[in-house]
Amino acid sequence: MTIKEKIPVGILGVTGSVGRQFLRLLADHPWFHLAAAGASHRSAGKTIATAVADEDFPEHIANMRIVPCVPGEAMPCRIVFSGLDSSVAGDIESEFARAGYIVISNSRNHRYDPDVPLMIPEVNPDHLELITSQNFGAGCIITNPNCSTTGLVLTLKPLYDVFGVEAVHVTTLQAVSGAGYPGLPAIDMIDNVLPYIAGEEDKLEREPLKILGDLKNGAINPATITLSAHCTRVPVSDGHLECVSVKLTRTTTEKEIIDCWQNFRAKPQELDLPTAPQQPLHYFADERLPQPRRQRHLEAGMAVSIGRLRPCALLDFKFVVLSHNTIRGAAGGAVLNAELLAAQKPSLF
Amino acid sequence: MTIKEKIPVGILGVTGSVGRQFLRLLADHPWFHLAAAGASHRSAGKTIATAVADEDFPEHIANMRIVPCVPGEAMPCRIVFSGLDSSVAGDIESEFARAGYIVISNSRNHRYDPDVPLMIPEVNPDHLELITSQNFGAGCIITNPNCSTTGLVLTLKPLYDVFGVEAVHVTTLQAVSGAGYPGLPAIDMIDNVLPYIAGEEDKLEREPLKILGDLKNGAINPATITLSAHCTRVPVSDGHLECVSVKLTRTTTEKEIIDCWQNFRAKPQELDLPTAPQQPLHYFADERLPQPRRQRHLEAGMAVSIGRLRPCALLDFKFVVLSHNTIRGAAGGAVLNAELLAAQKPSLF
Amino acid sequence: MTIKEKIPVGILGVTGSVGRQFLRLLADHPWFHLAAAGASHRSAGKTIATAVADEDFPEHIANMRIVPCVPGEAMPCRIVFSGLDSSVAGDIESEFARAGYIVISNSRNHRYDPDVPLMIPEVNPDHLELITSQNFGAGCIITNPNCSTTGLVLTLKPLYDVFGVEAVHVTTLQAVSGAGYPGLPAIDMIDNVLPYIAGEEDKLEREPLKILGDLKNGAINPATITLSAHCTRVPVSDGHLECVSVKLTRTTTEKEIIDCWQNFRAKPQELDLPTAPQQPLHYFADERLPQPRRQRHLEAGMAVSIGRLRPCALLDFKFVVLSHNTIRGAAGGAVLNAELLAAQKPSLF
Amino acid sequence: MTIKEKIPVGILGVTGSVGRQFLRLLADHPWFHLAAAGASHRSAGKTIATAVADEDFPEHIANMRIVPCVPGEAMPCRIVFSGLDSSVAGDIESEFARAGYIVISNSRNHRYDPDVPLMIPEVNPDHLELITSQNFGAGCIITNPNCSTTGLVLTLKPLYDVFGVEAVHVTTLQAVSGAGYPGLPAIDMIDNVLPYIAGEEDKLEREPLKILGDLKNGAINPATITLSAHCTRVPVSDGHLECVSVKLTRTTTEKEIIDCWQNFRAKPQELDLPTAPQQPLHYFADERLPQPRRQRHLEAGMAVSIGRLRPCALLDFKFVVLSHNTIRGAAGGAVLNAELLAAQKPSLF
Repeated sequence: MTIKEKIPVGILGVTGSVGRQFLRLLADHPWFHLAAAGASHRSAGKTIATAVADEDFPEHIANMRIVPCVPGEAMPCRIVFSGLDSSVAGDIESEFARAGYIVISNSRNHRYDPDVPLMIPEVNPDHLELITSQNFGAGCIITNPNCSTTGLVLTLKPLYDVFGVEAVHVTTLQAVSGAGYPGLPAIDMIDNVLPYIAGEEDKLEREPLKILGDLKNGAINPATITLSAHCTRVPVSDGHLECVSVKLTRTTTEKEIIDCWQNFRAKPQELDLPTAPQQPLHYFADERLPQPRRQRHLEAGMAVSIGRLRPCALLDFKFVVLSHNTIRGAAGGAVLNAELLAAQKPSLF
Repeated sequence: MTIKEKIPVGILGVTGSVGRQFLRLLADHPWFHLAAAGASHRSAGKTIATAVADEDFPEHIANMRIVPCVPGEAMPCRIVFSGLDSSVAGDIESEFARAGYIVISNSRNHRYDPDVPLMIPEVNPDHLELITSQNFGAGCIITNPNCSTTGLVLTLKPLYDVFGVEAVHVTTLQAVSGAGYPGLPAIDMIDNVLPYIAGEEDKLEREPLKILGDLKNGAINPATITLSAHCTRVPVSDGHLECVSVKLTRTTTEKEIIDCWQNFRAKPQELDLPTAPQQPLHYFADERLPQPRRQRHLEAGMAVSIGRLRPCALLDFKFVVLSHNTIRGAAGGAVLNAELLAAQKPSLF
Repeated sequence: MTIKEKIPVGILGVTGSVGRQFLRLLADHPWFHLAAAGASHRSAGKTIATAVADEDFPEHIANMRIVPCVPGEAMPCRIVFSGLDSSVAGDIESEFARAGYIVISNSRNHRYDPDVPLMIPEVNPDHLELITSQNFGAGCIITNPNCSTTGLVLTLKPLYDVFGVEAVHVTTLQAVSGAGYPGLPAIDMIDNVLPYIAGEEDKLEREPLKILGDLKNGAINPATITLSAHCTRVPVSDGHLECVSVKLTRTTTEKEIIDCWQNFRAKPQELDLPTAPQQPLHYFADERLPQPRRQRHLEAGMAVSIGRLRPCALLDFKFVVLSHNTIRGAAGGAVLNAELLAAQKPSLF
Repeated sequence: MTIKEKIPVGILGVTGSVGRQFLRLLADHPWFHLAAAGASHRSAGKTIATAVADEDFPEHIANMRIVPCVPGEAMPCRIVFSGLDSSVAGDIESEFARAGYIVISNSRNHRYDPDVPLMIPEVNPDHLELITSQNFGAGCIITNPNCSTTGLVLTLKPLYDVFGVEAVHVTTLQAVSGAGYPGLPAIDMIDNVLPYIAGEEDKLEREPLKILGDLKNGAINPATITLSAHCTRVPVSDGHLECVSVKLTRTTTEKEIIDCWQNFRAKPQELDLPTAPQQPLHYFADERLPQPRRQRHLEAGMAVSIGRLRPCALLDFKFVVLSHNTIRGAAGGAVLNAELLAAQKPSLF
């Protein structure tokens, strides 16, 4: 595809940690052409190379000049990817949508708006239809879930469809990159773990219900799963590990569950979306796996690794899930959402 | 107390990581006098200073010559503290007990023997009576539980007595010192966590039932609690953190539970044992606590820290527990067992 | 000593990381009574317990109410210990000195003032006389050096006196606590080291020359040593390790140097100052030592550990130095300065 | 090139940490075809997948059956890459050379043999001629230097040629992967650094002299540089950082030196060897760089990163060097040696 044929896209919050991941993923994207990079007034006017130090971007990206996050001529694009901080994301994203932009957001502000899809393309691509209920004219907002939610829900999805999921207990061991930059003080993460991440358990207990919910008559009917989450922070750079116990509706075996995961393919694989992993879920028979440093980069950080499936004395089964929090759980998930939209709704472009 | 009046004690496996902790705790103990240090034939004949490098012991300890782990004249003591590896602990401990020694063991081998107390002095001091059923003559064996069990059971004990405990879900984030020395490869613990610790979940699901069990007619009737454990390893030197959910028999409030923990005192406090913490359980209102590096040394590593009590959507309540794995969870727990014995059964000495 | 007889002292910048160390060291000091705690207007009015969370102070400290850093009735003390940030320390410290307070500062602002002692009590206690040249009336300012300077200069001092030191090459591996709180981002210190610490090499190349200088006719004649420093940051919480090469004036042997270090005692030991280590310099024959986690707490963090003395192909000898950066290298060094002053100049109190 | 046309190669010590890197680099090499994998008798008979767990190799590699390290039919290859432990490497490598194999070794045993090239293809490709003096018939031995030597010597080479190098002082901060697997205990590398690496300083002070030496009349005349090394271990997985000071023969400027590094190209670049980096030395103007986690993977781990060039008060200049210790400093360096040989001596194949 020539640049002319590619869809022009922009980034909101390009200097933040999610914004930088967007840069990496969009620097050479087969469908999207990076046409604008927006950030706060403090960074506006600087080049990417200056504002986003320490990164090695192609020259046309490095020399791009940052603009303020304001709809209009300085942001000549059809899609904006938002990695904005939640303190400002809500209003700016709405403003862009009203101005006719397609807003693909990683921020939490609009996730629970009834007409905004909270979407993982392998899980609830049908929720895309919600955008037809939005009142933004040519614009719309599509969100992806919190980094700790994505790995969990991707793993639950095939179980939910095939066996039914009634209850879930999850304890997370989350990487520090999830806290952004500068994020956590180094002195707190040396020879230490933190038993608390502000707001995280609420999101992890709430988001899966919307994502696994049914779209009926233009509204989401949330899934009825009892969910209890405990979130901790560990001295790992990237890759959230989650210890999960599930209660299923229907009796099954470990072999059936593993087959179910290994064979799971969905819309992004069917459509062969550029950022989609070949196999979304990989099960490891070696009980020492998955480990953050070993498996987080699986399929360019877009696949989820699972291991240690075994009976749970309290619920039915327990297992371990690992996913890359800043790729699959943030910028990569958002890019996949945009690719799904481009493939499913060509008329918008 | 003069040295003559102190009880002569020895260490089995003095060069291992638990053995070294025993050395630290016994080097200047008010009731016990370290009279012998045993290790494998490879170390026998060396001084402590040579065999246990890198430590700063008082001169009389540093110059002590290591002997083989054989009962008899070379081990002139009434009590032996065993930090032996489980590959050899079973037989050697039995041999010492048969020879008339009181064996205070941190190893797992005899923990499930029906007539061997698996003891935490604050939890089940009455189980000490089991030793009268042992067939070792003047000798006996007393064990303490696995490092991840101790913190959990201490925390459950007052809840169990006051409200009843029906089910427990626990996910551990365990320190590397629990794996002994050399233990885990450094390369596996940099920017990484491990989702699996061999044998650990079995111990953590089984030991609490014996410890919280009732002693009736000379036998333990195990507690009936449904327990599910998930054990992970994190890059922390000392201090096991555990995320716990509990289902209680009787309805209660967070305030009642916290009071119950804060006011918990037991036999070791009543007897004012030298190694006993003043307050076994400390609750922290700050939701960012407890953290391994900040709280593990609380009361010389013998107190357990608790935090983040809140409702659990699945069971009734959830919270976080931290305890020092090589002190409270190993050598310190064993020394406290010996102190309880000395205080409760003076006729043995 | 009763509280009435103790010298009333205050802290400037009590909420910072050095201020907290001052709190710990002064909470129960035999000569000093903590009478006031100052911080920015943002913290003023709060109690210590509220402003300095996560610490376990005695009740009378915890309930102390923080005041603004302004001389006068709210700071009823003879000495103020300053852990202020260098962005404000210069002016506030001068103001306190002018108001008649003895200012014991850990900040860098006044270190190079010609009439301000830059002092390590074991090294240049005679520099105390400089304060008689200061124009602050009853007040004065005394500073201690940068954390990486202290360990190095303490180690060089006996060599300088006995053999002469002509050149020094030093590479530091510095702990993250040296960067204050929040300090460095955690994500930068996981699986990483940083080759640069802003401003550090300048201090480390300059401060030793003043400290080892001669006081003559009321002025410091700096030492003439060629010094080259390279400073790096490593993922260690506390304890700066330094790899040092030295060129000496006089030929000597390794044995002579080690004896020289081991036997080094100075004014603080002679005066038996409360915070002084018994033996300022400890040499370790084991070539694997010193290590930050193993030796940093030696003599309550006030002693310096040395190891690996051997020939240097380029200069004469090389060795390794370890010292606790926030105790010996910051708050503890400052408290020792105050103790020296109190012992040497009783008329000031 | 079809497999038939590729040169058949084998690995000695395939289960070790260097052996695994060889596997990764040779699994899909354009010139070499992996025909055999050797290891100790303990591993012989197992498949690669079984013996080298946790890795994701292509099927034909995963299913390859390990053979003992014995020359002959079971090792049907022209080149063997040796990642053997030095306790056995010396004899086995000689045996293979005598049997007519070309031995490309990463072990230290033969490095100082007068007729064995100790080679970095960008630095001393002419030393290859030494193999004509070896008495192994069709076989020969070629070695690459220690991991900490490679980065240093690559950086010195252009300075040595253009300005002359008289003296070098180097302090290393080395990654734990350099210690092999299992290597260092995790407990020693949490919140800690080690001031000593057995044997490392000797290698780092000696190897550069042979590598930078002149080949004259079939013998190496070592370079005359005064070299002093101090080696430390830091909690980093991969990537050795080195703080270097140099004394040059000829006066120069920082700009000239940087240009000299940036423009440095050598035989591997000229021959466009498959594993050669495009630009062997990259200078970073940002004084916070290079950092292990950020730059170690530069040019697939085969380029060396340099930063912080500035004057040295003691010698002339100082700077920081970073190189990937298990790629450029071990297996990758060896593969590049083999590629140079294949390109320069086609008659051997």
